[in-house]
Amino acid sequence: MTTTNKITFHPDNKGINVHQGTDILEAAIMAGVHINSPCGGKGVCGKCRVRIKHGHEGAPLAEEAPHTFSLQPSAFSLLKTTGLLTQDELDQGFVLACGTIPLTGIEVDIPPSSRITKEQILTQETRIEHLERVVTRVETGEVDKKEGVFVYAPLVRKLFLNISPPTIDDHTSDLDRVYREINKIAGLEKLENISSSLSNIRLIPKILRDSNWQVTALMNRDDEHPILLSLESGDTSCRNFGLAIDVGTTTVVVQLVDLNTGRVVDTEASYNRQAHYGADVITRIIFSHKKQGMDKLYHGIIDTINDLILVLMEEYQIQQNEITATICAGNTTMLHLLLKIDPSHIRIEPYIPAVNFMPSITASEIGIKINPHGLVTCLPHVASYVGADITSGVLASGIHECDEISMLIDIGTNGEIVIGNKDWLVCCASSAGPAFEGGGIKAGIRAMEGAIQRVEIDPIDYMVKYDTIGQVKPIGICGSGLIDTLTELLRVKIIDQSGNINANLPTKRIIETEDGLGFVMVWKKDSGGQEDIIITQSDISNLIFSKGAIYTACVVLAKKIGFEINDIERIYIAGGFGNYLNIDKSIMIGLLPDIERHRYKFIGNSSLTGANYCLLSDKAIKTAEEIARRMTYIELSADNSYMDEYTGALFLPHTDMSRFPSVAGQW
Amino acid sequence: MTTTNKITFHPDNKGINVHQGTDILEAAIMAGVHINSPCGGKGVCGKCRVRIKHGHEGAPLAEEAPHTFSLQPSAFSLLKTTGLLTQDELDQGFVLACGTIPLTGIEVDIPPSSRITKEQILTQETRIEHLERVVTRVETGEVDKKEGVFVYAPLVRKLFLNISPPTIDDHTSDLDRVYREINKIAGLEKLENISSSLSNIRLIPKILRDSNWQVTALMNRDDEHPILLSLESGDTSCRNFGLAIDVGTTTVVVQLVDLNTGRVVDTEASYNRQAHYGADVITRIIFSHKKQGMDKLYHGIIDTINDLILVLMEEYQIQQNEITATICAGNTTMLHLLLKIDPSHIRIEPYIPAVNFMPSITASEIGIKINPHGLVTCLPHVASYVGADITSGVLASGIHECDEISMLIDIGTNGEIVIGNKDWLVCCASSAGPAFEGGGIKAGIRAMEGAIQRVEIDPIDYMVKYDTIGQVKPIGICGSGLIDTLTELLRVKIIDQSGNINANLPTKRIIETEDGLGFVMVWKKDSGGQEDIIITQSDISNLIFSKGAIYTACVVLAKKIGFEINDIERIYIAGGFGNYLNIDKSIMIGLLPDIERHRYKFIGNSSLTGANYCLLSDKAIKTAEEIARRMTYIELSADNSYMDEYTGALFLPHTDMSRFPSVAGQW
Repeated sequence: MTTTNKITFHPDNKGINVHQGTDILEAAIMAGVHINSPCGGKGVCGKCRVRIKHGHEGAPLAEEAPHTFSLQPSAFSLLKTTGLLTQDELDQGFVLACGTIPLTGIEVDIPPSSRITKEQILTQETRIEHLERVVTRVETGEVDKKEGVFVYAPLVRKLFLNISPPTIDDHTSDLDRVYREINKIAGLEKLENISSSLSNIRLIPKILRDSNWQVTALMNRDDEHPILLSLESGDTSCRNFGLAIDVGTTTVVVQLVDLNTGRVVDTEASYNRQAHYGADVITRIIFSHKKQGMDKLYHGIIDTINDLILVLMEEYQIQQNEITATICAGNTTMLHLLLKIDPSHIRIEPYIPAVNFMPSITASEIGIKINPHGLVTCLPHVASYVGADITSGVLASGIHECDEISMLIDIGTNGEIVIGNKDWLVCCASSAGPAFEGGGIKAGIRAMEGAIQRVEIDPIDYMVKYDTIGQVKPIGICGSGLIDTLTELLRVKIIDQSGNINANLPTKRIIETEDGLGFVMVWKKDSGGQEDIIITQSDISNLIFSKGAIYTACVVLAKKIGFEINDIERIYIAGGFGNYLNIDKSIMIGLLPDIERHRYKFIGNSSLTGANYCLLSDKAIKTAEEIARRMTYIELSADNSYMDEYTGALFLPHTDMSRFPSVAGQW
Repeated sequence: MTTTNKITFHPDNKGINVHQGTDILEAAIMAGVHINSPCGGKGVCGKCRVRIKHGHEGAPLAEEAPHTFSLQPSAFSLLKTTGLLTQDELDQGFVLACGTIPLTGIEVDIPPSSRITKEQILTQETRIEHLERVVTRVETGEVDKKEGVFVYAPLVRKLFLNISPPTIDDHTSDLDRVYREINKIAGLEKLENISSSLSNIRLIPKILRDSNWQVTALMNRDDEHPILLSLESGDTSCRNFGLAIDVGTTTVVVQLVDLNTGRVVDTEASYNRQAHYGADVITRIIFSHKKQGMDKLYHGIIDTINDLILVLMEEYQIQQNEITATICAGNTTMLHLLLKIDPSHIRIEPYIPAVNFMPSITASEIGIKINPHGLVTCLPHVASYVGADITSGVLASGIHECDEISMLIDIGTNGEIVIGNKDWLVCCASSAGPAFEGGGIKAGIRAMEGAIQRVEIDPIDYMVKYDTIGQVKPIGICGSGLIDTLTELLRVKIIDQSGNINANLPTKRIIETEDGLGFVMVWKKDSGGQEDIIITQSDISNLIFSKGAIYTACVVLAKKIGFEINDIERIYIAGGFGNYLNIDKSIMIGLLPDIERHRYKFIGNSSLTGANYCLLSDKAIKTAEEIARRMTYIELSADNSYMDEYTGALFLPHTDMSRFPSVAGQW
């Protein structure tokens, strides 16, 4: 028999008994407490720093002031420190949660920078009012026929049926009686096309009689294959809700929509709990091969979604059965894991997804806690690295139906690029890495409360002015803040165009770090965390690699199909930057091509927007399918010019300044 | 704690420990030993007679001669005898299995007349060579286009796919790669129409790679909604089998068909194990409301089918996965129970089935032990008392596509009548009762080994010549034998046209019984059972009620639509009579209308024949659906003339002899 230790996490004050040998990160997962762990517990990212508060069980510690903390090294075994913690941190009792195995019961304090809680995450749903494309609501009372507007026809509809009871002269079967009424109301072409599952049919005789033949039918929206998803007693048609879900590698966003009006009720977002097992899709695919790895990843995402649904249900007093439809967008790997389909071959050349067009399923099949008969539809992928999020993004942007040639750049963990118009669409993925989501950047965090999102550096005294999400003390820098930082460092010449920090400037902010030189953005005293917020030489290199990859992908893709960037009429930028992205500064560092600014449009989370359209219009789903089929995926790594282009892009903004005429001479 | 008693059944020599209080019938069911119990254990039919052999556990009894038997009344408690056993029988140790609760361990001998074993049942599949309608086999190498012939296209087909592995230039998803190949081979119209279940899709990546991209696809046969049912490693296409099943109230027949050639491999039949819970559909519907009644009925039929499948699989060395398709025909109640759908409202006015058109399901959904991904399709019903067996029978007879007006009479537990041609079809059910299946007849048994099927009585000495199925000693009389018996009794004037036995004839065969006068068909010494085989006054009345009901239904239905019987060009007789039915004698007693004999055709188990067609041709299934939709059900009980007609028919052959001109004067 193994002994167990009680681990209590603060500030959540949640405790759990775990077997000896369980590390703190695993214990936190089991306790339902979230600790940032983008490397998946490999001990390399250093993001899961926690502080051991006490080595004895049960002692009241909440009141204990931080400085009274006394470390009892006998209470745990350190597996990995790997230079990710400073001596000062170690002295204060900081350890990596993934590398520390408690030997006794302990109390663990999770600092803000390592904590993941739903509340900290910015709602990424930007009510994209600059997008003209909307789904016509029934509220308007009329159907707008103008191009680019989908007719309102939600994924699942409820039909109230007032059925005449059978008589000796009208002795059709229960099921045909229901179908007949549906047919009458919905005006379907052929009665015999309607189908229903055996498990549903088994319930129908009792429901019909218990409800005195007054029932509500849940129907999918497919006139060719109409399906009776479920029959409910009485008239429930006035309450019908749906979810548009963006299953991101990092963040999961759930939007609650009233299907009767088309109105967005609210949106909740949360970290993808799979992040415990790895920051990026590759790490997760590898993790899926571990024992029960697939199960853990599957439950990670399902639990994340279900928790968000629960929050929305409680907030708006909605019952589980009243949510009848879900549209999921997300990258290819995420949706494979959501449906528990092996994603292995996405990672291995020639990079083959198991499935691009996923079948519509009922919620009960994968355990999403809406009406168990409700539909879950995943939007289609194009390829292993151009997923349903991009299909959905194209749909949201509308580039697939314009005459003009447009480009969509989705900056996430990977950068995906689409170029096309109503006649053709090509796409590619760049291996940009997660730098603009904060991955691989010491001070990098996602766009959440406490994230620095705007930066200005004084060219004289190098003072840093910044703006955080939620207007609180900064705990790190998110994507838009990193773009600003890089631009400002360049503008005030703290770094040169190669990204090298100038050690000779008259400022204390330039310091030596373990990762080479660094520039202190925020001193510890002003920070919401336990230390200075520093951007290091290594961080700058990572950002340059990332922005270079995205820019290169844009240029090489365009060239491959015979275009110059200047031929592109419009560029849509999508991504999880919160509500802010400075196009000018993005161009100044060479992340985005230097074309007229008015051609750019920042569209936020276009994956979610497209999912919203599909939830509200069957035509939108069909269009998404057409988009996925039409899009030609181009593998950039096979292109000869790629490496040359990429090398030129590893400069701020570029080695060939003629490509950035509006930037030249600004510093 | 309750104590248990060991009950051992002979000649099976199967023992089971049961809790005190369990009756012998229930114990037999639990032990998997079959005892005839058409009344469902209510103690009224007297068919479950068994002999208690010994009251002590464990003593070797197999060698014991019957006459050494000594009854130990202390060993059991008799609940019901209800006059169904003679004192002689009681003295010999006979009891009703349903009315006897063992108080100690006992040994029970099941006499032949109460025993149900698979082997005794005549295979009802008559290789109906007199039916011109056949499904064109692929063997012929050509498709026969003549009317009434279905093109060979089995319900499930196997397609061997030799798939090119993915490359960097051909990076479509695994699923689309499979669909693409299916499309190529099957020539389907649109790739995107193919669908598959999530659970299937999850298996595909591994199967493809493990089998080196050589796989076999199981596909349904529906070009509009093609479904990939399953993917198998390697080439399994040379082994593909299907089942045509007739789920009768009394008998279940399973026909094994080689789907690659269309050839019938073999047919097995068995009593429907549900018969333990009641002989007819009404009794079973009532039983379904008992605690776990539905479960017991469901498992009763599923176990019956699975046992038959097992016998066929073992006999022909076929693996479970090689059986991929099943077509089920049967009456409305039977198929409701098979799919575990509540049949309650079939019994209650206005007699509404839950469903007439059942969805195609996979075998795993209801536990039929073929390939779990295999399809199970139930043919459609018309109404509560005109089921899929009749739809299937019409299909087999071909009356739905002839110019001439034809009639189908299916004589089973109920008699169902269809009249029509290619333009219209009407149908009705008569409450004929199970007399012609042996129900309600003291000596009545089903068409099985030992059943008297032909009878001749000498008009001088009243000696009875008979012919048994299997040419063994007689144990009872089956339907065709009962028709012969009635005719002969009338012909030699043992009964008059009202069915009354003449007590004054000079023969010892006319005796007094508990049910009034009786005529001894077979003396005990010549019988395979323990007693004389007697036809009683009560039996004769039951037979007259039954034949009167069927005849009346034919006449009233015809009249209702403006026809005389003589307008009917052709009459098909279907039913479980084994291989023999004497049309002449059926007319002589007024069971069938008196029209020219050449217009009659006996087609045996047409329900099974139609199921076979549907297994082998998708067109046949569509035709069956059309037939079910086209057929107009007419409720005869609502007809004013019914009772008058019926009264006239309770005579041999009829009170109005002008209706039976060819019979008049024959005695």
